Amino acid sequence: MSDASPLPPGSVIGILGGGQLGRMLSVAASRLGYKTCIFEPGGDCPASHVANFHFKASYDDTEALARFAEAVDVITYEFENIPTSALDALDAVKPIRPGREALRVSQDRLVEKEFLEGLGLSVAPFADVPDGAALEAAIARIGTPAILKTRRFGYDGKGQARIMEPGDAAGALADMQGAPAILEGFVDFEREVSVIAARGVSGEVACFDPGENVHEGGILRTTTVPATLSTAQRTDAVLLAGRILNALDYVGVMGVELFVTPAGLVVNEIAPRVHNSGHWTQNGCVTDQFEQHIRAVAGLPLADGSRHADVVMENLIGDDMDRLPDLIADPKAGVHLYGKAEVKAGRKMGHVNRLVPRTS
Amino acid sequence: MSDASPLPPGSVIGILGGGQLGRMLSVAASRLGYKTCIFEPGGDCPASHVANFHFKASYDDTEALARFAEAVDVITYEFENIPTSALDALDAVKPIRPGREALRVSQDRLVEKEFLEGLGLSVAPFADVPDGAALEAAIARIGTPAILKTRRFGYDGKGQARIMEPGDAAGALADMQGAPAILEGFVDFEREVSVIAARGVSGEVACFDPGENVHEGGILRTTTVPATLSTAQRTDAVLLAGRILNALDYVGVMGVELFVTPAGLVVNEIAPRVHNSGHWTQNGCVTDQFEQHIRAVAGLPLADGSRHADVVMENLIGDDMDRLPDLIADPKAGVHLYGKAEVKAGRKMGHVNRLVPRTS
Repeated sequence: MSDASPLPPGSVIGILGGGQLGRMLSVAASRLGYKTCIFEPGGDCPASHVANFHFKASYDDTEALARFAEAVDVITYEFENIPTSALDALDAVKPIRPGREALRVSQDRLVEKEFLEGLGLSVAPFADVPDGAALEAAIARIGTPAILKTRRFGYDGKGQARIMEPGDAAGALADMQGAPAILEGFVDFEREVSVIAARGVSGEVACFDPGENVHEGGILRTTTVPATLSTAQRTDAVLLAGRILNALDYVGVMGVELFVTPAGLVVNEIAPRVHNSGHWTQNGCVTDQFEQHIRAVAGLPLADGSRHADVVMENLIGDDMDRLPDLIADPKAGVHLYGKAEVKAGRKMGHVNRLVPRTS
Repeated sequence: MSDASPLPPGSVIGILGGGQLGRMLSVAASRLGYKTCIFEPGGDCPASHVANFHFKASYDDTEALARFAEAVDVITYEFENIPTSALDALDAVKPIRPGREALRVSQDRLVEKEFLEGLGLSVAPFADVPDGAALEAAIARIGTPAILKTRRFGYDGKGQARIMEPGDAAGALADMQGAPAILEGFVDFEREVSVIAARGVSGEVACFDPGENVHEGGILRTTTVPATLSTAQRTDAVLLAGRILNALDYVGVMGVELFVTPAGLVVNEIAPRVHNSGHWTQNGCVTDQFEQHIRAVAGLPLADGSRHADVVMENLIGDDMDRLPDLIADPKAGVHLYGKAEVKAGRKMGHVNRLVPRTS
């Protein structure tokens, strides 16, 4: 497949990961006439319910990975922590979009911070923490409070420990369980926003309106669109996202999380995939982030990201599902459930998009 | 399952028919956390791409029908011409929604016309045509032009023959190939509109705004919302649809096609299922007709049918697919493809919803 020619309808899009993001990507692919093939070690996973094919195998099963790659026309993913060996087995056979460079950068918090700094963007103060001595020096430089994070494989607040005063250092380091870590200084921010940005195979970039995020316990709770931003901040956010995508020669949708501070925007982190803070687009836009991602990886033109409503997206986590009868009964609420069999504390079970007429 | 208790997430909705309507019903069911199971004799059918399970068997395979019914929690359908023997095999095991009465009425044009007349609604002049002598008498009473239609199994203009003058009668009757028929007089209408109406298990009714339909060669070409209707006509249309659903103790979405005439609204036909003229709801409403239908058959509360945009829906038929690159490139267009492998003349391949800001 040449980079320039769009995938014809009937083509098969391979998706690594079978969670809710893969599920909603599969639905979006079906709208464009594509079939989907999920690669996911778990059995009755959310994406498998709406995908044509499901390779149920481990990410170290290189033979299964090769068969999967043969069965599809292009490969994408719903999570960034894909083992390098798996990527090697796959991209020998079919293109992976977004590409390897985006994964290399976003799989490692240290590499990501250095990459963003190299683009001239602001990030939180940070220091590499290979060991206890380095942690002591890092705390001396950055100060407290600070947060120690594993360089790899963190999500939803996992693999993180707060250091409120220097005496917390040893305990925090123990929490890393020997994994390489980085120390990040706290950013005194007014709010957190994210930009869901997309870049197509021919290099065009389109962004959805920034959303304002509220987290609880390290997990996204709500995203509100439009975010409270000045026109200049909104423009900055979008330009900054475009710079990141261009630098990576990126193809697909990326979530760019930003802190809004009096001194300007600080990049918190990037995710090379569709993003929880972009779920509002399902009910606020003609083309949502999932279809935008499929369009990009399939080589189709991007939609413009325009928005026809204001939206508040609320995640349904764990026991929030007890409120389902009320949510379903609200005629202005778009309810999206993930088909997960079991409700667990902290598990994302679905989300709801509440629409209000567009105000700005 | 009691009529009053909603199906919990994770339940399985059985769908008879694996075409594009079943496909879009499956996607809507996934949004609400349900699994779907398709019953469809064909193999690589549009709905199977996004359904959890697929019973590939014939409608006269009562054993497969019984296994299908055992595997699901409720049964619905995407087409009304389901053999009575199949319905008997199914409803002995699980509830069928919409119910048997709606199918009995809508499967036979004569029964349908008599049912609508019995509700005090206007229909085109009609006459039962069991044989040639009856056709002669019917033409004498109704006049020409008129149209001869098989009582059963007609769709998209199939099973119909126009009688422009009495001399056309013999040819038209031959076209029926011995099937029982009815003669319908032409209605001199200003426009054709349809109401997509829904009724829940507890009897509440919700209608989407009427759409204005343009047909070509017996196949729906475009639906435009809002339809050109006076406020009184709009109210009449919605009340009339509600009357039909109540009379049938209906559960689910129904398409009600109406002719707008100077003397008032004339009911053309009813379809006990989601309807092509309701596809605009996918991009014009928070809850579309497919989710509304799933809500009804699952015993959930209905959405209110409110609309946030004006929409023009255009069907993509046969060679219209050649225009796909332009359609995909239009940022205001929601493109929906059905995953059909082969383009054929007259085959519905997809549709596109073009949004404009709401005007009324």
